[in-house]
Amino acid sequence: MTISTFSLSPSELSALKSKYEQFGQGHVFQFFDELTADEQGPLLEQLVGIDVERLNGIYGKAMQASDVASSANGEQELVEPLTHDVFDTVLTAPSSDANSRKRKRQDIQDWETLGLSLIAKNQVAVILMAGGQGTRLGSSDPKGCYDIDLPSKKSLFQLQAERILRLQEVAQQYTLPQQQKVIIPWYIMTSGPTHQPTVDFFKRNQFFGLDEKNITFFEQGTLPCLTMDGKIILESKGKVAIAPDGNGGIYGAVQNKGVIDDLKRRGILYTHCYCVDNCLARVADPVFVGYCVSKQTDCGVKVVRKTQADEPVGVVCRRGGRYGVVEYSEISQELSEKRDEDGSLTLRAANIANHFFSTAFLDRVPEFASELEYHIAKKKIKHVDLSNGQQVVPTSNSGMKLECFVFDVFPYAKQFSVLEVDRKEEFSPLKNAPGSGVDCPETSRRDIIAQHVRYIQAAGGSIKGVPQNVVEATEVPNDLKFELSPWVSYAGEGLSDLVNGQVIVAPAVIETRQDLVKLTRQ
Amino acid sequence: MTISTFSLSPSELSALKSKYEQFGQGHVFQFFDELTADEQGPLLEQLVGIDVERLNGIYGKAMQASDVASSANGEQELVEPLTHDVFDTVLTAPSSDANSRKRKRQDIQDWETLGLSLIAKNQVAVILMAGGQGTRLGSSDPKGCYDIDLPSKKSLFQLQAERILRLQEVAQQYTLPQQQKVIIPWYIMTSGPTHQPTVDFFKRNQFFGLDEKNITFFEQGTLPCLTMDGKIILESKGKVAIAPDGNGGIYGAVQNKGVIDDLKRRGILYTHCYCVDNCLARVADPVFVGYCVSKQTDCGVKVVRKTQADEPVGVVCRRGGRYGVVEYSEISQELSEKRDEDGSLTLRAANIANHFFSTAFLDRVPEFASELEYHIAKKKIKHVDLSNGQQVVPTSNSGMKLECFVFDVFPYAKQFSVLEVDRKEEFSPLKNAPGSGVDCPETSRRDIIAQHVRYIQAAGGSIKGVPQNVVEATEVPNDLKFELSPWVSYAGEGLSDLVNGQVIVAPAVIETRQDLVKLTRQ
Repeated sequence: MTISTFSLSPSELSALKSKYEQFGQGHVFQFFDELTADEQGPLLEQLVGIDVERLNGIYGKAMQASDVASSANGEQELVEPLTHDVFDTVLTAPSSDANSRKRKRQDIQDWETLGLSLIAKNQVAVILMAGGQGTRLGSSDPKGCYDIDLPSKKSLFQLQAERILRLQEVAQQYTLPQQQKVIIPWYIMTSGPTHQPTVDFFKRNQFFGLDEKNITFFEQGTLPCLTMDGKIILESKGKVAIAPDGNGGIYGAVQNKGVIDDLKRRGILYTHCYCVDNCLARVADPVFVGYCVSKQTDCGVKVVRKTQADEPVGVVCRRGGRYGVVEYSEISQELSEKRDEDGSLTLRAANIANHFFSTAFLDRVPEFASELEYHIAKKKIKHVDLSNGQQVVPTSNSGMKLECFVFDVFPYAKQFSVLEVDRKEEFSPLKNAPGSGVDCPETSRRDIIAQHVRYIQAAGGSIKGVPQNVVEATEVPNDLKFELSPWVSYAGEGLSDLVNGQVIVAPAVIETRQDLVKLTRQ
Repeated sequence: MTISTFSLSPSELSALKSKYEQFGQGHVFQFFDELTADEQGPLLEQLVGIDVERLNGIYGKAMQASDVASSANGEQELVEPLTHDVFDTVLTAPSSDANSRKRKRQDIQDWETLGLSLIAKNQVAVILMAGGQGTRLGSSDPKGCYDIDLPSKKSLFQLQAERILRLQEVAQQYTLPQQQKVIIPWYIMTSGPTHQPTVDFFKRNQFFGLDEKNITFFEQGTLPCLTMDGKIILESKGKVAIAPDGNGGIYGAVQNKGVIDDLKRRGILYTHCYCVDNCLARVADPVFVGYCVSKQTDCGVKVVRKTQADEPVGVVCRRGGRYGVVEYSEISQELSEKRDEDGSLTLRAANIANHFFSTAFLDRVPEFASELEYHIAKKKIKHVDLSNGQQVVPTSNSGMKLECFVFDVFPYAKQFSVLEVDRKEEFSPLKNAPGSGVDCPETSRRDIIAQHVRYIQAAGGSIKGVPQNVVEATEVPNDLKFELSPWVSYAGEGLSDLVNGQVIVAPAVIETRQDLVKLTRQ
């Protein structure tokens, strides 16, 4: 443990106290004189780091928004579906004819080719939102370290690293050979508790084969927790209770932690931003990047199709004339159940925290950052009782965290675009504890293995004991031990040369093309 | 032009003269005293560099061998075909059944996989024999610079460089991602007249995208030209006539020019050695490397099938109980026409100057180098008439060059192996002037284009105006402008994802996978 040596001169201390008093937060000094010098230092360091005026402003706006939303008299914001000019999909309707299927395939291939050519020009980077811990999964490690019990025992981080490695190789073929090596820089946003464990995990695993120089870890920002009436909460006499500022904190962190400078220095024009808990995340997805760039997008979002009206997911839409996300709880049952002529839900663009940003857009966020609304999350927050100095561990919500969401910036896009992708190929989040049956380690594993089976089958191969033409993960035997490293195939490509007409016998963990050849010899 | 500052002390000069006299070559000093000091320097430098004792020895053995060969009374050396233990083929007999075809495919794939995994371990290097000039093609440039008028106008060197680039990428997938980048070092043997032009050509072309650090240029050795009775020829009063010591000079040059040290320093265990004039050369061919290593080969050779008895090619065989090459002119018509039961020529393993050597073998050559026989090539050699000092430009053979052949080392292999490959896929040498109709620029171009057509067709694509299922180059329209960079596919791999079911319209020059996608959109 390091000892803080932070200290202030008497006049500096006096000015700091005045500032907190001026903004109605003078109570943070209530126990200051009881602290030893060693305890005062860290508290002062925290307090100096807090922009108390900004904090009060955030609180005020958040309360106002919350009041409007909860007011029965508040005018209901108009919620409308996305229009065709900002929306496209990789899915084909079952009823579509051969020609329109071919056009769709060509569109996707054209987006992919554009995306790969941009990656090949070293213009694309990846930003990973990885601040979360596996608390709900029963682990205090960073969520990205979680082992979903694949045959290979790979962590989520490793799966994602191998996708980057593979994509660098694939993209290399989209340039002339005279070009430099393709690099997809990876910016990993951590949080206070996950930062060091994440860095250590990558080091321990030799960065999974990536070049350490191209991975940047940066910490998400924090905000003090507040009481319901907006007072900064002291967790203990010498410590302000703080919490991460939400996944929307990524914009501030990108600005403050040097990421934007590194993006510019490297000549990165486009970034793909996704959340660590999606085991199927197509990292730096060239189809999505190509789609967004083909539409001159500065802020884009990838969605999956919501099919059940009561699925509790946020939906990308227009609300009050501006692009945004509406939560299930915010709309009427009638609106959630509304369907288009073809039977699909009218509000179906389910948000999966998967984004495209141009570097120019990220660079522009400070211009409107002060306008962003923060959201109130009421929580049980450990705190010191100001009347007696005792620490209280509450059993009901005692205060609030203030969070900004990554999608709060949508209204500021100059060109906003949405791409719908196939849920079974691209989205399987890890949220819940083992055994819970939904968005849990078992569903993550099952969805990955089913995808690998589909890749082999699409390439003309088969796996002994597995039915042909698997679509849904439930069609795959539950105990099938079959896995294909992303390093061998990012999205099914490059397999037919080796597996067409071959039968693979599980258990099989394919880490290299060499493994693939061996397995077809059994 | 640099001025030689080479000089000797009077006692050194005297010792040098004595040595030459002792070995019957004192005449090289005949005009020495007539030369200016500036002219004496270069001559002395040449003479000091010649091991005159070794030269006389080489001459003596070469004459003896020549006498034996030409003597009508000389016992005819027994010439036998290769036996099955040292021979295999990638070809399947037209009559073979499905099972044996499958086994053959698997054998080839297993060799390829082994080869790629060794390349991936950075254990394989390439040695290129590129000493030749394009004299017979009407060019004084190094032969590798020759433009066979492909649509892309690529030189032979560039085609070969792009095969190395592609193979590095392909092999990368045969390792775990944690591994270092795959490097296939390239050692390029030049000769006196081609050395600097070759280096300049590579520099001018940015080494075709390869890393300069992994390309080594080294000069082939030379030997003085001799009169028919073994006297060193003076080209002018101050210059010994010299000539390259044959493609077998590669062994000496590998030893003397630091190549062997570099191979060891890099941990290279195996080398593929081929001749620059074969536009279809599969550089570092993983199938061949894997085949040789699977048989613990230290010295291997790739051959194509001789089908016409009167084709004037050397054939790999056993002669006098030792592995070697027998020239068409050395055997009787009866023997060249002899056929096996299946109708193929008994002596059919046509030598194409395409070799596999283990580093250990190359390292062992000095142990038997003194036993290697040199061959006499009678030539018209410009020389000084010793009786009057006049330079003579002869119209008939006036002397000899002494040459060692790369295959002269076969008898010293501990494990010798031969692999027969498909001529139309791997061998099309550039020997003759444009318009000559055989082994000329037109046949080189035609054979490459036909191969690229076969690659596309095998991957399920087609090219407008070209018949399906092309086998022979003559089936392809003569004016077809279609070309696929080796950078996109080394040997047909990796194309089906993009071209299956697609029609490509020529003219088309495909340099990247991006080009391939574009072409399927026309």
